[in-house]
Amino acid sequence: MKTQVLIIGGGPSGLLLSQLLYTRGIDSVVLERKTKDYVLGRIRAGVLERGLLDLMREAGVSERMEKEGYLHDGTLISYDDEIFRVDFSEHTGHAVMVYGQTEVTRDLYEAREKANGKIEFNVENVVIHDADSDAPYVTYDVAGEARRVDCDFIAGCDGFHGVSRQAIPLDVRKEYEKIYPFGWLGILSETPPVNHELIYANSSRGFALCSMRNENLSRYYIQCSLSDSPEDWTDDAFWEELKRRIPADQAEKLVTGPSIEKSIAPLRSFVTEPMRWGRLFLCGDAAHIVPPTGAKGLNTAASDVHYLYNGLRDYYENNSSEGIDTYSQKALARVWKAERFSWWFSSLMHRFPDQTDFDYKIQLAELEFLRENKAAQQAMAENYVGLPY
Amino acid sequence: MKTQVLIIGGGPSGLLLSQLLYTRGIDSVVLERKTKDYVLGRIRAGVLERGLLDLMREAGVSERMEKEGYLHDGTLISYDDEIFRVDFSEHTGHAVMVYGQTEVTRDLYEAREKANGKIEFNVENVVIHDADSDAPYVTYDVAGEARRVDCDFIAGCDGFHGVSRQAIPLDVRKEYEKIYPFGWLGILSETPPVNHELIYANSSRGFALCSMRNENLSRYYIQCSLSDSPEDWTDDAFWEELKRRIPADQAEKLVTGPSIEKSIAPLRSFVTEPMRWGRLFLCGDAAHIVPPTGAKGLNTAASDVHYLYNGLRDYYENNSSEGIDTYSQKALARVWKAERFSWWFSSLMHRFPDQTDFDYKIQLAELEFLRENKAAQQAMAENYVGLPY
Repeated sequence: MKTQVLIIGGGPSGLLLSQLLYTRGIDSVVLERKTKDYVLGRIRAGVLERGLLDLMREAGVSERMEKEGYLHDGTLISYDDEIFRVDFSEHTGHAVMVYGQTEVTRDLYEAREKANGKIEFNVENVVIHDADSDAPYVTYDVAGEARRVDCDFIAGCDGFHGVSRQAIPLDVRKEYEKIYPFGWLGILSETPPVNHELIYANSSRGFALCSMRNENLSRYYIQCSLSDSPEDWTDDAFWEELKRRIPADQAEKLVTGPSIEKSIAPLRSFVTEPMRWGRLFLCGDAAHIVPPTGAKGLNTAASDVHYLYNGLRDYYENNSSEGIDTYSQKALARVWKAERFSWWFSSLMHRFPDQTDFDYKIQLAELEFLRENKAAQQAMAENYVGLPY
Repeated sequence: MKTQVLIIGGGPSGLLLSQLLYTRGIDSVVLERKTKDYVLGRIRAGVLERGLLDLMREAGVSERMEKEGYLHDGTLISYDDEIFRVDFSEHTGHAVMVYGQTEVTRDLYEAREKANGKIEFNVENVVIHDADSDAPYVTYDVAGEARRVDCDFIAGCDGFHGVSRQAIPLDVRKEYEKIYPFGWLGILSETPPVNHELIYANSSRGFALCSMRNENLSRYYIQCSLSDSPEDWTDDAFWEELKRRIPADQAEKLVTGPSIEKSIAPLRSFVTEPMRWGRLFLCGDAAHIVPPTGAKGLNTAASDVHYLYNGLRDYYENNSSEGIDTYSQKALARVWKAERFSWWFSSLMHRFPDQTDFDYKIQLAELEFLRENKAAQQAMAENYVGLPY
């Protein structure tokens, strides 16, 4: 088989890139290790930045999102019983869209299928060959049968554990990492959200986040120990702990109910440099991970897709390789700012095991400064709705 | 002897409070452990916030400062060879004044002497009595002779090592502290400053600061190891290291010369709570210390003086104790924001021994964000010129 752009990974980044290229008549093939149902079964965050909204529109997959998604033009931040709002629209003229990553992926699959886009599921033993030559190709197995795709370019959209990053030699690659000493215990519950807008809560007992998927589906998180497992937490224990971490007037309003999903996620910051090696380009989690505070994961993947899509357009439409030659540099400049924001917001909101009383007072002083200071709110809002591409 | 307000400590805070009270006809006595020449021999920073400028004017001691001080309406920040400016006037409508703390102190002594203000030098064995009663008094020795002053209130302006903070019982006091794992090696040199405005430099070799006192007097600092002593650093070694830490175009312009002072200062964040106990009020370094990055030390002392002066005026002029009753709460709210700013700016600009590559990249990302983002610059400028009282 032959294609112009071989995309490894059928999650939202790979599908979005594939669909965007399709709108420009650029051919691609997507390889996915799992089944479509498996991919759609993964529960991820669902706060979309303005840049991703624009890409969804450009890709022609925004119809359901515009109808069913929720525009949020602000967020709430609390510390103990204090609560204040950062108004995104006032400070930036933009809002964010609450629309689950699963829904984004579903819409992208639908669009790719409608366009007869080539997606191979259940692929195994993916190997990238000659990425640093003018004739790269990828081999893999499907149901025990060996296959090969020759291509102009390879987009590595296969996540943190994928093969793409590993294909870049170690002497070229430099990796940066921070592991946070706690996790997020999250539950999904068919209850009305305690608040329409998200509440990020700093409490002396640890972080909590109240978020919503729709009028009768809520997603709540509490900071937990890395040694906890979901079975350690009954629904009742979760709700009790959540109530202790949010302001009393919110806790009173909280509607509880049985969880329909409960899981623990670790928090990690990770970046690999460069994001390009020859004709291989890394996108999204394959190149970088952020802690979930501030919902930058999918959005930063989308910014990579933006730079790569435009670089590839430039190559095929204008015969210019400038866009792909500067891909790594441009993508990383924005990645590091998203990493900084996610690190800052995580550092501001969580209890750390080695945190001193001084450190805690500094958190409270920063929250008070953010509550009072319009410029600080604006800087936060600009990051939250997404820095310009 | 009897007075209304007994002030312990003849540094700038104590003298400023004494002079301000004098303008309102409120009597005070100042006790100082050292001689006037010793106090005036201490070299300290010299960047005055707008709030302190207003207090100097209100105290009638601003004449020489307005004539000889330098208004700075911006500062430069560099990282490696990148350099950018934060414009204070553009973002806040205010500037800061470069005028040495020694000069502030000199002007205050002159004003106090002109008004026949009572200042006792060389006092020893100061003891605070009955601060939690309605009849506090202070005993001390001068040249072996025991003395006593009865007063309405005691202002503890005697610095970090003074007796005032220690007079508050340990079960009432809570202290917060952070020690930074490096020092600042500073030199004073009779050379024209490399730049009129200050340059705060983050470099892979460590922090540096270029500052000026006047057209032919410069003050430079480099981050150094806590185990270094000034004798380890020849002038030549200092200049060579400084040049490596500032952008190449600045290093080329740097005029070097013999140092006329060379010393190492440790960096510490410290706050004690509460700042009031009965009729004893702590001001400035007696209650809190900031690392010098951002020049908040004298300025935060001045904000304490502002709150205490207004509280005492309210007491004597309006027979209201509200101002003094809320002194600790008001002063601390602003202190913690200055502590946060100084901690943030220190954390952003220095190399830390346990800093990972990830941490360093986050510093660079934050500097790049600050360079590009007007809201972040405004938040920084508002802190630098001083948050409103």
